[in-house]
Amino acid sequence: MIELKEGERLDDLNIKGYRIIQHKDKFCFGMDAVLLSEFARAKEGELVLDLGTGTGVIPILMEAKGKGSSFRALEIQPESAAMARRSIALNGLQDKIEVVEGDIKTASALFGRAVFDVVTVNPPYMNDRHGLKNPDLPKAIARHEVLCTLEDVIREASALLKERGRLYMVHRPSRLQEIITLMHDYHVEPKRLRTVHSYADKEAIMVLVEGLRGGGVFMKVEKPFIIYERENVYTEEVQAIYRET
Amino acid sequence: MIELKEGERLDDLNIKGYRIIQHKDKFCFGMDAVLLSEFARAKEGELVLDLGTGTGVIPILMEAKGKGSSFRALEIQPESAAMARRSIALNGLQDKIEVVEGDIKTASALFGRAVFDVVTVNPPYMNDRHGLKNPDLPKAIARHEVLCTLEDVIREASALLKERGRLYMVHRPSRLQEIITLMHDYHVEPKRLRTVHSYADKEAIMVLVEGLRGGGVFMKVEKPFIIYERENVYTEEVQAIYRET
Repeated sequence: MIELKEGERLDDLNIKGYRIIQHKDKFCFGMDAVLLSEFARAKEGELVLDLGTGTGVIPILMEAKGKGSSFRALEIQPESAAMARRSIALNGLQDKIEVVEGDIKTASALFGRAVFDVVTVNPPYMNDRHGLKNPDLPKAIARHEVLCTLEDVIREASALLKERGRLYMVHRPSRLQEIITLMHDYHVEPKRLRTVHSYADKEAIMVLVEGLRGGGVFMKVEKPFIIYERENVYTEEVQAIYRET
Repeated sequence: MIELKEGERLDDLNIKGYRIIQHKDKFCFGMDAVLLSEFARAKEGELVLDLGTGTGVIPILMEAKGKGSSFRALEIQPESAAMARRSIALNGLQDKIEVVEGDIKTASALFGRAVFDVVTVNPPYMNDRHGLKNPDLPKAIARHEVLCTLEDVIREASALLKERGRLYMVHRPSRLQEIITLMHDYHVEPKRLRTVHSYADKEAIMVLVEGLRGGGVFMKVEKPFIIYERENVYTEEVQAIYRET
């Protein structure tokens, strides 16, 4: 028996019967989160932290895919954290995923250093504040670097990861230089890059990056991820993701 | 009337009737050079420098495509420089492309600083010297960082470029982190990235990068370049390149 609050809706995650609560005025997850949970790797027994978890969609999807055994999910907005906790309970995952209210900027002080095997993050994409009318809006906090910068995210991820731990990030291609130089500066060496394109003949709209704490310099650029075969028709790879049960 | 030396052959460049002399024991240009000349942009009136020109293929192709007006081509190996000069003469391009013998490591001392609108480079890809039996071999010099490192290339390119000048590089994906961090360190901000894949569902085998001297941080990741549609059949994009006259 689910009690939804005003403005909330219940969405099916198309995997293991899991569902998620989202709010119409808050940030709703998109393909970014789905692709990040696909791209990320976590083995049985590994401890995973999701930074800025929002609705909690990434740890819920990771758990559904059998990636990692135990999850922490950090969220600064109390209403979002509460909503994520309700979604986690709804799916019976209280023993596996713990939502912690707190600030990414001081996450390593909160959780301790060198604690996690894996960190995932779908950070705010925009670093310009042009046209940002009300930076207190929940959506603005999720989308713009109002409360934390890309450097905060990567610095804290680096501190939180064990040596040889991995960081998985989805972001905009426009920020790729900053992602790579910051990861390198904070000793989370970029190892895998996957670019995401709406169509095979269009520029990238997202990048997926894996960094390895204490890794060497060599990178691998994987096959491009293409979303649409043609208008309104997903590629086989996208269909396979949404076909999972 | 062309006089070929022993071990040399004459190859058609499939554009404007241009031909090029290559030597069977030296580095012969591949699709890397062709794709770099496609990816690079140079306007009428612009002065272009090719670092480590080898056979001279990149400036010859750039000229054929109407990119740039005047070219310098730096080559450290005297035999390669002489061969490049003969190819340039063969195509009647002596007034447009000048081959200069010299070392990439000191190129900005040779040509001066802030001189060029565009620098192109297809540098040695390998920084490991494992299994390198004879580092003096001409092929080894072209393929391995025997005589110059990636940092030498980017440092000198940065010094050689005018403010707002562009660097165009083809390299291996494995070196992408180094390319991006070094470009950023030397104020040639990476602006465009194109990944090159043999097939649409294979990892990248090359990366094409444009850097802008004094540019801002934002990057664009272009549509992936795919070489083969299926076995032995080039994609339309590759066919179009080789169809040029």
